[in-house]
Amino acid sequence: SDVGRLLVRCPDGPGIVAAVSGLLHAHGANIAQSDQYSTSLEGGTFLMRVVFHLPGLAQRRAHLERAFAERVAADHDMTWSLHDAARPKRAAILVSREDHCLLDLLWRTRRGELELDVGLVVSNHDDLRRDVEPFGIDYHHVPITPDTKPAAEQRLLELLDGQVDVVILARYMQILSGDLLERLGVPVINIHHSFLPAFVGAQPYAQARARGVKLVGATAHYVTEELDAGPIIEQDVARVSHRDDVPALIAVGRDIERTVLARAVAWHAADRVIVHDGTTVVL
Amino acid sequence: SDVGRLLVRCPDGPGIVAAVSGLLHAHGANIAQSDQYSTSLEGGTFLMRVVFHLPGLAQRRAHLERAFAERVAADHDMTWSLHDAARPKRAAILVSREDHCLLDLLWRTRRGELELDVGLVVSNHDDLRRDVEPFGIDYHHVPITPDTKPAAEQRLLELLDGQVDVVILARYMQILSGDLLERLGVPVINIHHSFLPAFVGAQPYAQARARGVKLVGATAHYVTEELDAGPIIEQDVARVSHRDDVPALIAVGRDIERTVLARAVAWHAADRVIVHDGTTVVL
Amino acid sequence: SDVGRLLVRCPDGPGIVAAVSGLLHAHGANIAQSDQYSTSLEGGTFLMRVVFHLPGLAQRRAHLERAFAERVAADHDMTWSLHDAARPKRAAILVSREDHCLLDLLWRTRRGELELDVGLVVSNHDDLRRDVEPFGIDYHHVPITPDTKPAAEQRLLELLDGQVDVVILARYMQILSGDLLERLGVPVINIHHSFLPAFVGAQPYAQARARGVKLVGATAHYVTEELDAGPIIEQDVARVSHRDDVPALIAVGRDIERTVLARAVAWHAADRVIVHDGTTVVL
Amino acid sequence: SDVGRLLVRCPDGPGIVAAVSGLLHAHGANIAQSDQYSTSLEGGTFLMRVVFHLPGLAQRRAHLERAFAERVAADHDMTWSLHDAARPKRAAILVSREDHCLLDLLWRTRRGELELDVGLVVSNHDDLRRDVEPFGIDYHHVPITPDTKPAAEQRLLELLDGQVDVVILARYMQILSGDLLERLGVPVINIHHSFLPAFVGAQPYAQARARGVKLVGATAHYVTEELDAGPIIEQDVARVSHRDDVPALIAVGRDIERTVLARAVAWHAADRVIVHDGTTVVL
Repeated sequence: SDVGRLLVRCPDGPGIVAAVSGLLHAHGANIAQSDQYSTSLEGGTFLMRVVFHLPGLAQRRAHLERAFAERVAADHDMTWSLHDAARPKRAAILVSREDHCLLDLLWRTRRGELELDVGLVVSNHDDLRRDVEPFGIDYHHVPITPDTKPAAEQRLLELLDGQVDVVILARYMQILSGDLLERLGVPVINIHHSFLPAFVGAQPYAQARARGVKLVGATAHYVTEELDAGPIIEQDVARVSHRDDVPALIAVGRDIERTVLARAVAWHAADRVIVHDGTTVVL
Repeated sequence: SDVGRLLVRCPDGPGIVAAVSGLLHAHGANIAQSDQYSTSLEGGTFLMRVVFHLPGLAQRRAHLERAFAERVAADHDMTWSLHDAARPKRAAILVSREDHCLLDLLWRTRRGELELDVGLVVSNHDDLRRDVEPFGIDYHHVPITPDTKPAAEQRLLELLDGQVDVVILARYMQILSGDLLERLGVPVINIHHSFLPAFVGAQPYAQARARGVKLVGATAHYVTEELDAGPIIEQDVARVSHRDDVPALIAVGRDIERTVLARAVAWHAADRVIVHDGTTVVL
Repeated sequence: SDVGRLLVRCPDGPGIVAAVSGLLHAHGANIAQSDQYSTSLEGGTFLMRVVFHLPGLAQRRAHLERAFAERVAADHDMTWSLHDAARPKRAAILVSREDHCLLDLLWRTRRGELELDVGLVVSNHDDLRRDVEPFGIDYHHVPITPDTKPAAEQRLLELLDGQVDVVILARYMQILSGDLLERLGVPVINIHHSFLPAFVGAQPYAQARARGVKLVGATAHYVTEELDAGPIIEQDVARVSHRDDVPALIAVGRDIERTVLARAVAWHAADRVIVHDGTTVVL
Repeated sequence: SDVGRLLVRCPDGPGIVAAVSGLLHAHGANIAQSDQYSTSLEGGTFLMRVVFHLPGLAQRRAHLERAFAERVAADHDMTWSLHDAARPKRAAILVSREDHCLLDLLWRTRRGELELDVGLVVSNHDDLRRDVEPFGIDYHHVPITPDTKPAAEQRLLELLDGQVDVVILARYMQILSGDLLERLGVPVINIHHSFLPAFVGAQPYAQARARGVKLVGATAHYVTEELDAGPIIEQDVARVSHRDDVPALIAVGRDIERTVLARAVAWHAADRVIVHDGTTVVL
């Protein structure tokens, strides 16, 4: 506790670091870690993540935010946010029938590896209820058919609106409408079961096998209205061979998917991901 | 020496292994290694690579081949080839201006890592002559422009025809015509500077950066008339981050390219790659 | 079903493959996959794994085994075993307090990734009972103290003797006595929480951090009476940095441990591991 | 050009970042990248690397250093150094007979991948002269036998003293005496052909094979008087199997060795490595 994290994005220019660190110092904060990145040495965008220790952060946060807004952010045209590391992000996990990503997230959260407070799991099937409830988490079954999609999305919105800071699609096989994404107003993280941008679309493992690829991969990304095109947070691959038939590829893929999604969620939950210009910077 | 390698492809069915191993045994060969693969348990294709030790192989090879053709291959409708491990494959390397794949192949060949006898290097530029000639290998400068392409390909054909068992494109930035490929009549191995099938085409590293991918890759494949679509032999990736600008991605890419190409060439030279149904099986 | 696997180890010499494949062929079996390995071209040991399809295997197995013993194995001084792929291995999992390896094995078994029939979980603590029982698997609490070790091992033996084909130590923090290992008479697989042979002993992550290593690893091996020295089945590593303190290293280690153990168990369950001369050959 | 790099190590405490960035800002520098690390939140050591852009750095450097020493470093008890990125480090490479690490370093330097100015290569054999001289680099043959070691080290010292900023042991099979190390007074980087701390000593690949390990590795480290125990800069591994005999392991090892050494040298040359408490922090 008493650890804060500051994320900053602004046009690059001289004196930004000095201004940020000076203000934090003046308020009694001690900087423990700071990562910065400029998209270009001339006229680029400056991105920064600062982790600091400030006794009494919870009480002093509003005051610090006001000072930062007035005395630093305004001068440098900053987009910024300040996070209290003691408050885990409230999360909902959406899932269909496959359990590997869901169980890995729940287990890691229980372990303390993810700074999450998982409030609910929502699925368009009832299959995984018995796996979720022992974790003490509510399980909501919201079936979706083409006909009922608007009503189902309305139900989703009621469950999630104002209740969560992030939504995680852990092999949720429904496409969220642009309207729903907009009304949710929080980041939505998806795991795509292939190495984007290769094998966009359905049945990537069958595509990969037909092409004879020697690696299969997975991609975690923020969801945007354009399918499979949101900013990539993390990717990884595993080696396969001709001996791996499609079920074997799918099994290998499950390992990569759960690992990649867990890493992406961990980074998001630790305020390490800044979206910029259609891609991400992980600091 | 006295080590032979037999590659077999045929419709699957009972008794193939017994027939092959029985004939080799009857001729005094001792099987040291055997790898087999069936594309499906029912009605598939059977692929096999056998490494055997046969004293006096060089003298007895023609006899063995005749016997194999008559008594085994015909019964099982086999496509097959028999290789003497003591005879390295005669190779030509084609290159443009980038030296990393070329030099790595020459270093590895000199060190004995690749079962190659590199007879010549051909380039459409003269830049790399001074790097190649110290290896005692002929360097041929065959410029190509859109106008002179037919004559240049004719010159390539004169240099290569009957002289080589394999052609390696080590960052050769010209497209070989289907006509030339056919008249060469030997396998052509290419290194593609991206993780196929993603980023087909030019400037894959700029594409990758724009997309924010977290891994860059390379693909070694046999060349077919259809660009970037030949059977994949090997692929690999390396991790990158937002800190890597396009030149940095290219530098990382060079490492992957030379490693992937060297592995593919090593496997081809060791008769480990069987092409089947548009993909490869590496045994 | 109707898929058999034959594991063979014998002194190398001519005609082994022909004899094995000939006998299988004569009994109507079709060889789907065969992997062989000779430890040396002269006077070495020959190791072989054959996967075959034989209609009615369950009924014909005893007959086939008898024929193989008499007509092939005796001539070549073989150590061999024949397995019916339709019969998953009966397994016990021993665990102490850490759940990551245990849960991963249970999830994978339920999903059909491991050819196991997990009959029971035994622990020297009662902590994980609530995680295990929802899988429908018996949980036995067998406490062990230095004073009660003989009685506790006797209790273990009663639970396991004749009931299992393999015992898996999934972070079981007790050392099995040589006497118990011998009386169990089945393979015991352990996951060691470091990259053997480095960091033998306790607190490997603290050791690794003090030494500033850039990778942490895990090792799955068969248990022998000599601690940490049994034949290695599988190993892997993950990248770490100075930013990872000991708890972070342990978290990274958990991922490697469960993955390495699951791979080793999968290979063992699929009859792919042959122990030879203090090490393993994975075919 | 005009890019500087500042490395700082000091007892942790409030206001360090503000002081450093404030001074740089006051001198007209723009911070492009900054990485910090505290060994502990309470009473730890603070490490920092700052990359900044300062027009006219070469002319203004002495002035900046004086100001930094007086107004920042003294207050915080800092160990620090300031580097001009436009001045590559002067390097000597020491090698015995194996060429893979040497050639890779020379080729990468020529490519512009390493911020090095390689002034000379020294070897206890004359074998690699013909590979080095085409790069336009002096090759010195300094034979060493047990009897001539003091004289040979004296000759080494004459060649290197005051001429280089770093010495790279690229598979140099002689042990440098503690006396020589001290008199050289510059960092010495070594590539150790195994995954330290496993397989300390000679013939690590034969040791690895006997133990049946599934990965082989290499370690780049700073040389200290205690053999194989200096601070680790980088490590990596590659997967191997029972099919890899000792020569094959050595070939795989060469790839890892050259890659790991090149990475360690690149980081050192880019002022990214800070030694602290017997280990390294790579920022």
